[in-house]
Amino acid sequence: MEKYELVIIGGSAGGIQSAICAQKHHGLNDILVIRMEEKVMVPCGIPYIYGTLGAVEKNIMPDKLIGAAKLKIAEATSIDRKNKTVKLNDGQEVGYNKLILATGSTPLQPPIPGLNKKNVWFAWKNTDYLGELAKAIDGKGDIVVIGGGFIGLEFADECRKRGHKVTVVEMLEHCLQLVCTTDLCVRAEEALKGNGVDIITSNGVKAIEGTEKAESVFLQSGERIKCSMVIVGIGVAPNVKLAKDAGLEIGPTGGIKVDEFQRTVDPDIFAVGDCAEKYSFFNGLPVPVRLASVATREGKIAAANIFQPQWRNIGTIGAFSTVVANTAIAMAGLTDAKAQEIGFETVIGEAEAASKHPGTMPDAHPMRVRLTFDRRSGKIIGGCACCTHTVGEVVNMITAAIVNEMTMEQIAMFPMGTHPWLTASPLAYQFTDAASNALHQVKKTVKS
Amino acid sequence: MEKYELVIIGGSAGGIQSAICAQKHHGLNDILVIRMEEKVMVPCGIPYIYGTLGAVEKNIMPDKLIGAAKLKIAEATSIDRKNKTVKLNDGQEVGYNKLILATGSTPLQPPIPGLNKKNVWFAWKNTDYLGELAKAIDGKGDIVVIGGGFIGLEFADECRKRGHKVTVVEMLEHCLQLVCTTDLCVRAEEALKGNGVDIITSNGVKAIEGTEKAESVFLQSGERIKCSMVIVGIGVAPNVKLAKDAGLEIGPTGGIKVDEFQRTVDPDIFAVGDCAEKYSFFNGLPVPVRLASVATREGKIAAANIFQPQWRNIGTIGAFSTVVANTAIAMAGLTDAKAQEIGFETVIGEAEAASKHPGTMPDAHPMRVRLTFDRRSGKIIGGCACCTHTVGEVVNMITAAIVNEMTMEQIAMFPMGTHPWLTASPLAYQFTDAASNALHQVKKTVKS
Repeated sequence: MEKYELVIIGGSAGGIQSAICAQKHHGLNDILVIRMEEKVMVPCGIPYIYGTLGAVEKNIMPDKLIGAAKLKIAEATSIDRKNKTVKLNDGQEVGYNKLILATGSTPLQPPIPGLNKKNVWFAWKNTDYLGELAKAIDGKGDIVVIGGGFIGLEFADECRKRGHKVTVVEMLEHCLQLVCTTDLCVRAEEALKGNGVDIITSNGVKAIEGTEKAESVFLQSGERIKCSMVIVGIGVAPNVKLAKDAGLEIGPTGGIKVDEFQRTVDPDIFAVGDCAEKYSFFNGLPVPVRLASVATREGKIAAANIFQPQWRNIGTIGAFSTVVANTAIAMAGLTDAKAQEIGFETVIGEAEAASKHPGTMPDAHPMRVRLTFDRRSGKIIGGCACCTHTVGEVVNMITAAIVNEMTMEQIAMFPMGTHPWLTASPLAYQFTDAASNALHQVKKTVKS
Repeated sequence: MEKYELVIIGGSAGGIQSAICAQKHHGLNDILVIRMEEKVMVPCGIPYIYGTLGAVEKNIMPDKLIGAAKLKIAEATSIDRKNKTVKLNDGQEVGYNKLILATGSTPLQPPIPGLNKKNVWFAWKNTDYLGELAKAIDGKGDIVVIGGGFIGLEFADECRKRGHKVTVVEMLEHCLQLVCTTDLCVRAEEALKGNGVDIITSNGVKAIEGTEKAESVFLQSGERIKCSMVIVGIGVAPNVKLAKDAGLEIGPTGGIKVDEFQRTVDPDIFAVGDCAEKYSFFNGLPVPVRLASVATREGKIAAANIFQPQWRNIGTIGAFSTVVANTAIAMAGLTDAKAQEIGFETVIGEAEAASKHPGTMPDAHPMRVRLTFDRRSGKIIGGCACCTHTVGEVVNMITAAIVNEMTMEQIAMFPMGTHPWLTASPLAYQFTDAASNALHQVKKTVKS
């Protein structure tokens, strides 16, 4: 039986990063990565296969990323924790000293009648399946997207670019509602509508209809939308069967329970990424955030800790961004609703200014930042930015402020750099001005 | 005699921000802004008048920015600190309770023979003068730019866009050497050369030659460059005559001495922006950084403190960015040379990856981050990024890390958000990977 110092099950973002960092931190080469897929998809790139990239082959993570680690294409079917072995579907067994589970997640399948009809598709991270989906999208006909989260809107936008008539159906009042403040949701919706995408909100799907293939989607409102295919993007469920069968504990959001070192209840087994439970930076309680960026971070932490506790996970903040209909949107930390739900009294500060300065510079567009603070401590707990392509990094600056628990005053005085081509004017820099405006809100309240 | 609760002398970045924030923080409307110019130029926009913007009128700061503050176009000629009055060049006198000096700076005039010839130009922040310069650049002929700092390179690039043959002459080994690490300097130089700009480094100007007008520039190397005009951009000198005459103390770099509350030695007089002395965030000693972004920050701090000490200036970090020949470059904190000069032993971490992910996304370009850490504490003390247009905000994220004294480990574990259109892959995010690589350098050293 082959035995490895470190075995990693799963070869997507979390698994790859674990393999990279175990080599980097410990100089460890005795690593086996076990994964089911011949080729691994860039998870966030999946919607872009269907418009921008144009082919599944353009969205593949290169195997060379795992460096000196050995790769085995197989399914791990069981873990024997006592003997520290993993059984594979080819009958082979491999031994481990340390084990990292990075088994990922699977698209959620809601209990909708007709979901098993032909031409109902999910964002399965499987090359062959996604290749078949590409052929389906190559065809003609209208598309219904069920779910107005990031993945749903990105699919809608890409299919729209390919010339399809697309309708998005979202149960909640707004698309992106669980992760964004309302005005950002509205901006995304308006941008997509402006490009011809139909968006139906506050409406659920009662059934997918058709003889063999999906032919229409029947809504709770009684409306019926004709279509030739359906794409479902309503979230993911962690892949935890392997862990569960091995007796590892599962947390409240369905992920494998881990401590701040990414250890499961078995000190030799770690879990990272979509399969692992996440805990909020803000209150330490479980949160159902599943993102590749979070997975890679947990991979780094687990890899650092395999032999000795070194790095502690400070908890999940949740930083997201997307671009739909050329409108970029980014968000970090708590939404207003979430902040209130967990007991924060919030103060909001907003600022909008041209993305370049003076505003007469070519391609200057309005860029807006909105920051949320805890009234008691004055600390930042969330923020969002739209709509220029710099917001992906602006929101990372906001994340840096959150991690470091910066206050309104500290951000108002933040020593940013500015340049005509690259940022707003120093007199109207959105991040600092939003904090200053929040501070002003507080002052007005104290006075009144 | 008119009397105001707050008088601000100077109407550029620092003065305007002081006026805005005094209103915001104290609800104060009894403010007079005294400035010499009919119209105020956006300082960082000046080089862009000559190519990208195309006209002086497109680079003006709107007067409405100062809100309810009163505006007076005049030159303040003296301050009577005992009677708390300011004398103006129109004979008028105005009283103040609190006074903020934001008198700015003037382009340095090096002791070069022939500097007073016609067609030798400086970046004077004066609308009429810059309008005349526009007419000169409208003409034909070759241009020599003396000084390869930000302003010099930006002028060179804009004049190049207008079809001029441009030569930059820099005394030091590299352009931008005082503010950037060498490899960034080289990238900027190469980008400009690739667009046809001649760059001569390690060479000084001995004389500007010509009968009445500048006709050639004679270099220390003996070389002679024919030209029809010369633009000089070698830095600025703080405008402190008014302060000096009033008995206020001047600091070692020539700025008005201020404390951490932006107070001068007179507790009723504050100084902000280019005219005020700056102190390093890293060691508290004076530093000759003069930027609009620093000026606005100091304006906010001074305004907050006029009636009572409220905000402390944590010191100047220095965050810069520019774009030349479509190559964006950004830098925050200490260069390696500066860090060593003030006693830090440094550890460098670098990371380069495609700016979008997968790298097959349209317009993905290599983006690179380089971080400098203090070996003893592990804290970040500097960083730079190039060459995509997101680096202006990336360097602000780096600045946030510096302000919060983040360590290599904290940055390596930083919970960034990522998106295919907006950032590198989560497996290759440059900021976190650079920190991780720095950490790896340290480990290698500890082991060896």
